[in-house]
Amino acid sequence: MPIDIDAVRRETPGCAFVAHLNNAGASLPPSIVVDTVVDYLQEEALHGGYETAEAREADLDVVYTNAAALLGGEPENWAFVESATRAWNAGFSALRFSPGDRILTTKAEYASNMGGLLRATEIQGAELVVVPDDDSGQVDVAALESLLDDRTRLVSIVHAPTQGGLVNPVAEVGRILRDTPILYQVDACQSVGQLPVNVEEIGCDILSFTGRKYVRGPRGTGMVWASDAALDRMANPAGVDGSGADWDAPMQLTPLPGARRFEPFELFYAGKAGLAVALDYVSSVGIEEIASRNQRLAGRLRGGLVSMPGVRVTDKGLRLSALVTFNVKGHDSLVIEGLLRERNINVSTSGPMSARLDFPERGIDNVVRASVHYFNTEEEIDAVLEAVGDLRP
Amino acid sequence: MPIDIDAVRRETPGCAFVAHLNNAGASLPPSIVVDTVVDYLQEEALHGGYETAEAREADLDVVYTNAAALLGGEPENWAFVESATRAWNAGFSALRFSPGDRILTTKAEYASNMGGLLRATEIQGAELVVVPDDDSGQVDVAALESLLDDRTRLVSIVHAPTQGGLVNPVAEVGRILRDTPILYQVDACQSVGQLPVNVEEIGCDILSFTGRKYVRGPRGTGMVWASDAALDRMANPAGVDGSGADWDAPMQLTPLPGARRFEPFELFYAGKAGLAVALDYVSSVGIEEIASRNQRLAGRLRGGLVSMPGVRVTDKGLRLSALVTFNVKGHDSLVIEGLLRERNINVSTSGPMSARLDFPERGIDNVVRASVHYFNTEEEIDAVLEAVGDLRP
Repeated sequence: MPIDIDAVRRETPGCAFVAHLNNAGASLPPSIVVDTVVDYLQEEALHGGYETAEAREADLDVVYTNAAALLGGEPENWAFVESATRAWNAGFSALRFSPGDRILTTKAEYASNMGGLLRATEIQGAELVVVPDDDSGQVDVAALESLLDDRTRLVSIVHAPTQGGLVNPVAEVGRILRDTPILYQVDACQSVGQLPVNVEEIGCDILSFTGRKYVRGPRGTGMVWASDAALDRMANPAGVDGSGADWDAPMQLTPLPGARRFEPFELFYAGKAGLAVALDYVSSVGIEEIASRNQRLAGRLRGGLVSMPGVRVTDKGLRLSALVTFNVKGHDSLVIEGLLRERNINVSTSGPMSARLDFPERGIDNVVRASVHYFNTEEEIDAVLEAVGDLRP
Repeated sequence: MPIDIDAVRRETPGCAFVAHLNNAGASLPPSIVVDTVVDYLQEEALHGGYETAEAREADLDVVYTNAAALLGGEPENWAFVESATRAWNAGFSALRFSPGDRILTTKAEYASNMGGLLRATEIQGAELVVVPDDDSGQVDVAALESLLDDRTRLVSIVHAPTQGGLVNPVAEVGRILRDTPILYQVDACQSVGQLPVNVEEIGCDILSFTGRKYVRGPRGTGMVWASDAALDRMANPAGVDGSGADWDAPMQLTPLPGARRFEPFELFYAGKAGLAVALDYVSSVGIEEIASRNQRLAGRLRGGLVSMPGVRVTDKGLRLSALVTFNVKGHDSLVIEGLLRERNINVSTSGPMSARLDFPERGIDNVVRASVHYFNTEEEIDAVLEAVGDLRP
């Protein structure tokens, strides 16, 4: 069933105020998400935080079921945390590396994941290897396969990176890794809610995402999933506490079975209730319909941009996402962001800090990022094109 | 100036609903805190999350100034994170240990801190030493001093532990450590907002606290402070990202100066605005007045309890906090919690998971914890005493 765009826009109060093409930054939430968070906060204020968490346990726990319904896996393999960065690190930091163990990653890796990866090299002596891109600009799957060896412990890939329109072939990599003991971590920060994502179809061991982007949930929320096989091989994550582990001997915290070891006791509980509703909203709109409308809207925007003199679309890869990035000759990206804001259009920029392994060698300093989502309209896309067209060379 | 209890209770909508003596769990926030969070969330929904953070930057950054005003230090040495656990780990995980380096801690240490401490023993080969208590039940300061040696890198102490009424002599320990190269980390999770806390007076290097407890802020908020001297000796914390560090070479993230290295880019921003207001509210009520009223209320409760047959008050130490803990012979603590709830009184319990180094050797399984705060009334205290008195042996 096609999406009723008028209805979803009515359910999104921000649509009346702004053309929001910063959905890979933080999207506009539907009212039902904001109302859920606000109601929960009001209840906490009247009855107490612990007491509300107890009374609303079912509304909180449905976040696991809703994640499993949208993304696969079992509810007990999903955990709620504070952000995509916490989610990615929850999974990654539960692994242990010995000196010389190799981790493969890609040029599209993001700064926050690099923080974790480099920590493992510094403290545990792991070796980090960056797999080259293929000619299309996605990860070179053949090169990745040829780099696998006995020392390879983990492959870490970002599905749809933050700094451009790339969609990496995560399922193809999953097929290569399926019959190996190598663990496979996927950062789905920009893809969950934008594209169909299924942990079993990808064949990964760890997958993480954020609430605030394409899921249209609250800021300060994220989730992580781990397979049973990965959990069996995992120890405590960094930041484990007495609700994620049993303090069963004076000098021992034993991780709980399942993914709950990743979830801290203290949380933005109202946000957890809100994320549960946001995930359900994605499912009710329909992820296949969302993805195909995102493709159409992003295609309309890219198509308009590539035909403009002085405009360089910087997206790459065989398959493109809803993140449309570009440069305009003679105009700084931050200035363009500001000019669009004056026309009531929200976009963002990506700089080298987001893409240190990617941008410099492509000669890119920073880019304008217009990240569309299904509730955007064709008129909003055309308004961006008009604004960019008005820039004087 | 004495606190206008009627006024603070009018400003606390929860006071009309419940006698809340679970303030060391999560306290009842004043309306101004909840309204701030809700307004911020509504603004995000209308204008976008990134755009709101930009427009409200001053309201967010005031959290650092307000923390410094209440707790000392400079604003740039304070960072906002998601919880006390994240705050404690932010500071601790920025340290590096070599095999054989010693960390001293106390019997009052909490499960979540133990998670970090044991991770350092497991992965970095640090050695963890538990300092005994003195006869009063607080940390034995003389024993601590005698344990200091060339291998000692860090002393980690909890100021007012979660599982009882102890207040550890943190400034006394600070004086011993002041002229040594040993770093000193204080967990002030239950003391900030309850007692006067000042980082310079304590003489610590790292201090962390939560928003939800005695500060009466939102759940899912916390802060960490580090001294300049400590920051100079610190590397990246676990979970560092591109807003806490410069990705200045492909394989290098260099921590930013100051405490901002501890603060993730993605956060519960509405909660940050709310915590700023909550800290200001503490200062406007007056921490000295809050502390002395807490002493009176806790004293009234303890005084009533100790005189009851079959009741054992389990608090210990030279100086007692606003956390009043007790057992009633023949009655399970969880059952007592439930019976009080039926009378519209919120209390909590603490079990061995919170106090694995403390409870077992004192023969305690778990305790009822009635944690008072200044907005409680004498009538509410007396209602608890009456309810406990009604328990049949």
